[in-house]
Amino acid sequence: MAEDTSRRRGGGGAARRARRTAVSFDCAKVIDRRIPDLPVFSDDLLETIEHNAETVLEEIGVSFVENPAALERWKQAGADVSGERVRIPRGLARQLCATAPARFIQHARNPERSVEIGGRKLVLAPVYGPPFVRDAERGRRYATMEDFRTFVKLGYMSKWLHHSGGTVCEPTDLPVNKRHFDMLLAHMTLSDKPFMGSVTEPSRARDSVEMCDILFGGLADRTVLTSLININSPLTFDSTMMGALETYAAANQACIISPFIVGGAMAPVSVMGTLTQVLAEVLAGVAYSQLVRAGAPVIFGAFVASIDMNSGAPTFGTPEASQITYGAGQLARRLGLPYRSAGAFTGSKLPDAQAAYESANSLNAGLLSGVNFMLHACGWLEGGLVASFEKFVMDADQLGPLHRFAAGVPGDEEAQAMDAIREVGPGGHYLGCGHTQRNFQDAFWRTDLLDYKPFETWDEEGGRDTATLASARVAKLLSQYEAPPIDAAVVEALEAFIAQRKEAEADAFV
Amino acid sequence: MAEDTSRRRGGGGAARRARRTAVSFDCAKVIDRRIPDLPVFSDDLLETIEHNAETVLEEIGVSFVENPAALERWKQAGADVSGERVRIPRGLARQLCATAPARFIQHARNPERSVEIGGRKLVLAPVYGPPFVRDAERGRRYATMEDFRTFVKLGYMSKWLHHSGGTVCEPTDLPVNKRHFDMLLAHMTLSDKPFMGSVTEPSRARDSVEMCDILFGGLADRTVLTSLININSPLTFDSTMMGALETYAAANQACIISPFIVGGAMAPVSVMGTLTQVLAEVLAGVAYSQLVRAGAPVIFGAFVASIDMNSGAPTFGTPEASQITYGAGQLARRLGLPYRSAGAFTGSKLPDAQAAYESANSLNAGLLSGVNFMLHACGWLEGGLVASFEKFVMDADQLGPLHRFAAGVPGDEEAQAMDAIREVGPGGHYLGCGHTQRNFQDAFWRTDLLDYKPFETWDEEGGRDTATLASARVAKLLSQYEAPPIDAAVVEALEAFIAQRKEAEADAFV
Repeated sequence: MAEDTSRRRGGGGAARRARRTAVSFDCAKVIDRRIPDLPVFSDDLLETIEHNAETVLEEIGVSFVENPAALERWKQAGADVSGERVRIPRGLARQLCATAPARFIQHARNPERSVEIGGRKLVLAPVYGPPFVRDAERGRRYATMEDFRTFVKLGYMSKWLHHSGGTVCEPTDLPVNKRHFDMLLAHMTLSDKPFMGSVTEPSRARDSVEMCDILFGGLADRTVLTSLININSPLTFDSTMMGALETYAAANQACIISPFIVGGAMAPVSVMGTLTQVLAEVLAGVAYSQLVRAGAPVIFGAFVASIDMNSGAPTFGTPEASQITYGAGQLARRLGLPYRSAGAFTGSKLPDAQAAYESANSLNAGLLSGVNFMLHACGWLEGGLVASFEKFVMDADQLGPLHRFAAGVPGDEEAQAMDAIREVGPGGHYLGCGHTQRNFQDAFWRTDLLDYKPFETWDEEGGRDTATLASARVAKLLSQYEAPPIDAAVVEALEAFIAQRKEAEADAFV
Repeated sequence: MAEDTSRRRGGGGAARRARRTAVSFDCAKVIDRRIPDLPVFSDDLLETIEHNAETVLEEIGVSFVENPAALERWKQAGADVSGERVRIPRGLARQLCATAPARFIQHARNPERSVEIGGRKLVLAPVYGPPFVRDAERGRRYATMEDFRTFVKLGYMSKWLHHSGGTVCEPTDLPVNKRHFDMLLAHMTLSDKPFMGSVTEPSRARDSVEMCDILFGGLADRTVLTSLININSPLTFDSTMMGALETYAAANQACIISPFIVGGAMAPVSVMGTLTQVLAEVLAGVAYSQLVRAGAPVIFGAFVASIDMNSGAPTFGTPEASQITYGAGQLARRLGLPYRSAGAFTGSKLPDAQAAYESANSLNAGLLSGVNFMLHACGWLEGGLVASFEKFVMDADQLGPLHRFAAGVPGDEEAQAMDAIREVGPGGHYLGCGHTQRNFQDAFWRTDLLDYKPFETWDEEGGRDTATLASARVAKLLSQYEAPPIDAAVVEALEAFIAQRKEAEADAFV
């Protein structure tokens, strides 16, 4: 379907005209950490985990379910395959992981918005997966394609969000076997930030790659998708997710290989035990990606919740989840892989104080644990069942401080401000001094949302809480939304591809 | 007034009986950090700050206002005194600081609740200073002595709070020159945790020490008060605060020497500049404390807010405030002093998401920057103008995760959980396995407040937000409150002392 790509590459005159007249929304550069990571785990503990993970792979092994081709690949690579169980000799998985790149570029259709994933970088992407949405006006309800589009628009307009994400919510009003087309089209046309592909079926992964081929005017091995491959923890790799992984890896598209852990349920009820299993699973998954295509870009993932042992409910923003987030980051760096974890996680039903405490705890752990790709960085509510419009803009505002803090502290003469201290002296104030006048505009991070007004003003204006302010901000952003410019011919080609593919299959709703 | 202390020491039979029958409220041990601090600043930057701070002391100097005795002490020590300006030769202040202890014990009347301040320890104390209180039922209003007592009771019952604090709110219904008696009596009788002394007048500092002498049955140089000495930034030491400092230092009572910084107003509008001024002020203040009494316990304080340069309002939980918190911690450790900073800071008017984001940001920075004494760890609202009952219990709950995270990760065989991974294997689950059964009760931190219920249950119960749950928790705690046992004779002696002192003076309301 890429027969006429050369004409489209770079956009035509119409696209150039559209670009000139379009409202521009600021997007921050990917975070470049100039602060150290926090080494919560000693080298001794990390070596123990690494040793134990190899023992798990060698003695217990992992299951590749309903996937004879995978079993054959593992056999060829030297693993001990028995039924669907793959036992991997000590050291083999780590050795296979060595061909995975330590960092890679995910290209966006707007080259300014391409992101580097790995090293000291941190890329922020929105919530992924909720079947429900919530807003102040209409409450909690099943998500629709219209909600999906709204989230993509909000993501496009969020300055501190580098990535458009993937399933920002599940459009439950569309057939399960066809909604990926509409979701991809939304990311491609309503935003110009990088995005994720479908993983719910290998054929949908292929559709994702083919649509990118149209959008980018031919891929030529460029990485333009980062997709989420969950491992069916403990130690199980199902054929749906592996099928998607195989498709993406073969096309040099990036995958997050991510154990899906609720500690105490899918992993041992201890931090060390959970990290052992996480590492074993990631080693096996990444190694497998490299068996499919050596050099395919992958990310060491760790989605971690703990569990409330009274109710069995998953819990978020807890200290044990933070410990695992830090430990997995150290393990990822020792393995030389980009790292995905953390997010604005919460178990709260509302965008209230619980939501904010838990999210802030997790966001801070994400920054200081060396996360390179943070999915769910905004909008997550109720343990991931709900995508919240208000929380989306609340969290997105809090991503600003991460940028500022990560930038470190300048130490030049102007920053030292000795002239200011000399000018003001004991008992004076700095509001009017020369140094303040020169620097105040950029001196401090500024919120786009939170309230700093005097009590009386705030009270006169209705005494609004954060969720109420967020509701107003959502409405304001959406009223200002304008789509980024795109060549109409590209959109037509995408729509034609989708129409043809949709027609070829009956609707499926389960 | 300590004539009959021997009889009272340790309490009589009545106290022992009361102790046996009293309801006991758990109190966690002081946090003992088994995780590293985060070194945000390089040694180069820290050396620059230290060099510049010495330049400030030498060239610009500091003012000791209306305090001839202080000027005389500085002259004797070798400083260049001109009018009220004290210029301190390079190196002299640091040299004088060397006699201050790196750590000290603050004794509580219940020896189990004594706290060590310094080293790897973190002591948590509640909000300090608000003239207003807020609760869900009655809204925002001037604080009264009854509110004060309620906060002391809540602090006593808060498991993660090690310290009863000081002015948990200003009892504005009592005369300014007499309210310190009632405040101290409340801390002494309604709680058995350590507390702070009055600093609003040197005579009130003396009253604080004398009441402690009665409470403890003679002090004999034991440190039983840690009090807050704010520096009138920039670079000014007023005679009220210094008078309190002189009283406390002479009695071997601890003081926090704390620049009060709103960046851009009381300090340069840059992180490096602010840290330079903070260090200069702390060096001068601590050095002065050691001139009063070499070896007197002191804490390197840094109260830091940034400023919204649009409105002039102080802002909290911002990235720049975090950077200063981290930097000051590194400077304090290089100086060998205990460190006070951070807290559950927020500019929000309500215990909402803004309050929680900002507070969590600051609490996390406090833990990882190596704070040893954290004032305002719970209950702070509206930039410190308001003490909130709901936020008190909300923040206090969030102090639990700090304890868990700081404890580090055990690495023993049971923690490694290899038996669990072997038992469960690929595709199983861990809920029922032996390792989970043995460990689940202590595996994860548990909230006393937040909601983890399924949506349907939560919805049926009224769909309550965190502030509403907190309101219920405040009521429940207060209904369960019982005072810790105390010898009735001690209370009588305290009351007699107060009656006599109150009679000696007319009421003052300004």
